[in-house]
Amino acid sequence: MAKKTNKLKIIPLGGLGEIGKNITVFEYKDDIIVVDCGMTFPEDEMLGIDVVIPDITYLLKNKEKIKGIFLTHGHEDHIGGLPYFLGKLNVPVYGTRLTLGLVENKLKEHRLDKVKLIEFQPNNKLKLGSFTIEFIKTSHSIPDSVAIAIYTPVGTVVHTGDFKIDFTPINDNLIDLYKFAELGCKGVLVLLADSTNVERPGYTMSEKTVGDTFNDIFIKAPARIIVATFASNVHRVQQVIDAAELYNRKVVVSGRSMINTINVAYELGYLRIKEGTMIDINDMHKYPSNQIVILTTGSQGEPMSALARMAFSEHRKIELVPDDLVIISASPIPGNEKTIFRVINKLIERGTKVIYESLADVHVSGHACQEELKLIHTLLKPKFFIPVHGEYRHLKRHGELAMELGMPRENIFIANNGSVIEFTKNSGAITHEVPSGNVLVDGLGIGDVGNIVLRDRKHLSEDGLIVVVVTMSKQEGKVIAGPDIVSRGFVYVRESEDLMEEAREVIREVLSECEKKNITDWATLKSSIRDALRSFIFEKIKRNPMILPIIMEV
Amino acid sequence: MAKKTNKLKIIPLGGLGEIGKNITVFEYKDDIIVVDCGMTFPEDEMLGIDVVIPDITYLLKNKEKIKGIFLTHGHEDHIGGLPYFLGKLNVPVYGTRLTLGLVENKLKEHRLDKVKLIEFQPNNKLKLGSFTIEFIKTSHSIPDSVAIAIYTPVGTVVHTGDFKIDFTPINDNLIDLYKFAELGCKGVLVLLADSTNVERPGYTMSEKTVGDTFNDIFIKAPARIIVATFASNVHRVQQVIDAAELYNRKVVVSGRSMINTINVAYELGYLRIKEGTMIDINDMHKYPSNQIVILTTGSQGEPMSALARMAFSEHRKIELVPDDLVIISASPIPGNEKTIFRVINKLIERGTKVIYESLADVHVSGHACQEELKLIHTLLKPKFFIPVHGEYRHLKRHGELAMELGMPRENIFIANNGSVIEFTKNSGAITHEVPSGNVLVDGLGIGDVGNIVLRDRKHLSEDGLIVVVVTMSKQEGKVIAGPDIVSRGFVYVRESEDLMEEAREVIREVLSECEKKNITDWATLKSSIRDALRSFIFEKIKRNPMILPIIMEV
Repeated sequence: MAKKTNKLKIIPLGGLGEIGKNITVFEYKDDIIVVDCGMTFPEDEMLGIDVVIPDITYLLKNKEKIKGIFLTHGHEDHIGGLPYFLGKLNVPVYGTRLTLGLVENKLKEHRLDKVKLIEFQPNNKLKLGSFTIEFIKTSHSIPDSVAIAIYTPVGTVVHTGDFKIDFTPINDNLIDLYKFAELGCKGVLVLLADSTNVERPGYTMSEKTVGDTFNDIFIKAPARIIVATFASNVHRVQQVIDAAELYNRKVVVSGRSMINTINVAYELGYLRIKEGTMIDINDMHKYPSNQIVILTTGSQGEPMSALARMAFSEHRKIELVPDDLVIISASPIPGNEKTIFRVINKLIERGTKVIYESLADVHVSGHACQEELKLIHTLLKPKFFIPVHGEYRHLKRHGELAMELGMPRENIFIANNGSVIEFTKNSGAITHEVPSGNVLVDGLGIGDVGNIVLRDRKHLSEDGLIVVVVTMSKQEGKVIAGPDIVSRGFVYVRESEDLMEEAREVIREVLSECEKKNITDWATLKSSIRDALRSFIFEKIKRNPMILPIIMEV
Repeated sequence: MAKKTNKLKIIPLGGLGEIGKNITVFEYKDDIIVVDCGMTFPEDEMLGIDVVIPDITYLLKNKEKIKGIFLTHGHEDHIGGLPYFLGKLNVPVYGTRLTLGLVENKLKEHRLDKVKLIEFQPNNKLKLGSFTIEFIKTSHSIPDSVAIAIYTPVGTVVHTGDFKIDFTPINDNLIDLYKFAELGCKGVLVLLADSTNVERPGYTMSEKTVGDTFNDIFIKAPARIIVATFASNVHRVQQVIDAAELYNRKVVVSGRSMINTINVAYELGYLRIKEGTMIDINDMHKYPSNQIVILTTGSQGEPMSALARMAFSEHRKIELVPDDLVIISASPIPGNEKTIFRVINKLIERGTKVIYESLADVHVSGHACQEELKLIHTLLKPKFFIPVHGEYRHLKRHGELAMELGMPRENIFIANNGSVIEFTKNSGAITHEVPSGNVLVDGLGIGDVGNIVLRDRKHLSEDGLIVVVVTMSKQEGKVIAGPDIVSRGFVYVRESEDLMEEAREVIREVLSECEKKNITDWATLKSSIRDALRSFIFEKIKRNPMILPIIMEV
């Protein structure tokens, strides 16, 4: 149990040194509030893993202190870990309307129905123990995004959440620069700010520019238009709908997450849709093709997504034809380049025209570039700065940006997940570490797949395995049946019969050797089999399959 | 056996619909020449595969016709498949000096010492059967790159190889635009041209611009400079050496492929190095750190490369310190983004400064952009066009570019690997297909890993496996020993003892059920075990491991 002090502790448990699974803990004496609880997708070497969530051991140990969890917006890297978190910690959840709408959906899927969801809007203040919390409106690639001001006994902390500065946003949701200015005027102790785009000079383009590109494309398209984008990008969806209405097209939605998000966003008033614009996918044939837009998922090339299914002729309701035009309104997330281009190539092979980012301005980022970051730093004038939401290179570069603006190096904390950064009114320091890291979710198992299991999966994936079974008599130490050899993922057995027969011979020799030496210790016998077979196989074919000797005792 | 006709057949066996393993066949009556024979790296789903080479079944069937193989340059995607090709087909190999130097090295590794390597230089002509072949000097990211003119009885074919147009190349190796003009004047029947950068407008920057950036960086660097680039980019290496000599630094080389390539290039006169510039890695300590440059591999973040080993403190001779400056002089090849940024993050975490492409002009492409392609099309004025060296989207776009320049759509052939494109003096058509595709190399095995093995590896990689062994008496059909369960890559066994015990119980029930029913057909018994266990596991934990029941008969 941590010692009580008069210091404010800020503990990022996720989102530092990575883009994903954001979660930050704010602690003062007996009070803890948590900001966000995201998930991330598995790295390549995390074979078979579905999602990765943050390690919340520290919060479980301090659960009586937790007053609430505050959500900055409804993206998976900020809310995706919530069902797992709430499965273990029954804590009230505060968020804006759309964010909670999306969370509610998610909790239903996980059958978590006893969670207290509390709508909380910008410009209201909420006192929870030592903290007073206020949301500040920002711009981002999902509506209802907020920054958070946390008023603490040692000073004010501002966490930007994910943001950009868009002077011409969709739905007139301007970032509340007044509030940032006011906070800066009154004095900010610590800033935590989004580092995603810190390597990019200049400004992020306005979401409106994408709408202009849509208009240019919609006016010329001779037949159906298919737009693939992130389901959560409600502004993008709005612009597709606007362009459709302007050019007299009906909108069809395909893809489960797109349907879900549009439903939530529309019900909560985040989408303006004219009566009759949306039609059912089964009514599509009633309209000429130049009066149809299909809004869909799969902008990252996900193999099971609606767009991938269309590309590979596996979509049950939509058959693409050469006159169709596909717009990929998204950038590839690093690591997804190959999958998305596989879909694009397949679409073009079908004769469909495809417009993607390298060909037209059909996407803008949701994160602030250097000049926007400078504006926020300048308005807030924080005493201390913790760059968050970025790989190490982003955090470091963001620290340098703060120094260029005049902040002393020692007031900037390039921290890790698990770092405890303690603040008084005048000082700040990284003092120690608490447990943090990746919890791997595989099917229903949470955290039961770790390094050994992953190492085995990797080994199996590269060279397959050979199982050797021998039945031995316990009393005499003699072979009664076998050796039998079964292999999987190793070689085509039919074409490698000689190799397998030679392998069996190698094992027989080991067995007769052991019999001569009267070895009845099965562990020794197994390792002899493993060693002999491994050398034999490697010499023969330069592969190193997993070898699994099993001795049955009779 | 194909029918003899008076038509020229052009058959790409690799490099179409992909970037990699380029190989093109030119056939007229009894004569075949082959251009290039590359390799490619395995796709994500080709688990455990080392390299991928083209299927040359067609050439094996027509081997008596093959007069020679011509190499455009020494990159792996053009020469990497050669050892496998030459292991099956003893054919003379024609190439420029550096290309053959690199091939020689490669053949030594594969112990192929009886291959006839014939140096062939631009502006010479060689008659082989129905064909006369001429090399044309081009610019690319490796010296001694050439395009190929093939004079055939139906007309002249030009294959650009990989190229760009660099008016200020390193070592004054200007592309021979005169020859392209001359060929265009005389008339070109078919053009095959590099499509890699066809999506990019404008011109590719000159290699010289990278040298300017190096100079800016070298003059300011306070300590050691480490430059990581492709070993084969001899011009880049030259520019590093030039900058080192200019600013009085010694050059150390680390990384096997970098050492090999520099040796070959230097011996053949492709690198100008002053006496005393290169020093041994063991003498590095004799110089102050601001007099050292380290040239190294690992620009793609390859885990075993010298740069990655430096980043993760695993390099035996080089320990990085915070004042060191690392330049990554390369772009991430699509799919490598995550690995390279993992290395960059680690380097920055160590305190090392890292300069990479998103921060400075430390790399230029080796492939022609749109305006360069237009120039070559315009100079050559070919009657027919086959875009090559690209994914489908590139080939299609390149076809559109040719149409923008006035070529009729029907004269452009967007082909596949294996397409046979037949030409007379006035006509061209894709007539049929020959076998083509990927041959997977895993260790010493060539082509013995196919879909079933890969499917098993994928299954094993995602959910691991459970082996169930039972020893049965043949006569009575009774269980004598077992069931024993062994799992790998599935769950932590220690933490899942209950699950495994329940699983054993499920199998015992199946066995006793089968015993009651007097089932002595082991196939039925195995599939009963598999089905019961699969359902049980999926219900319990939503995973689907491979289940391998083995019955030992006594």
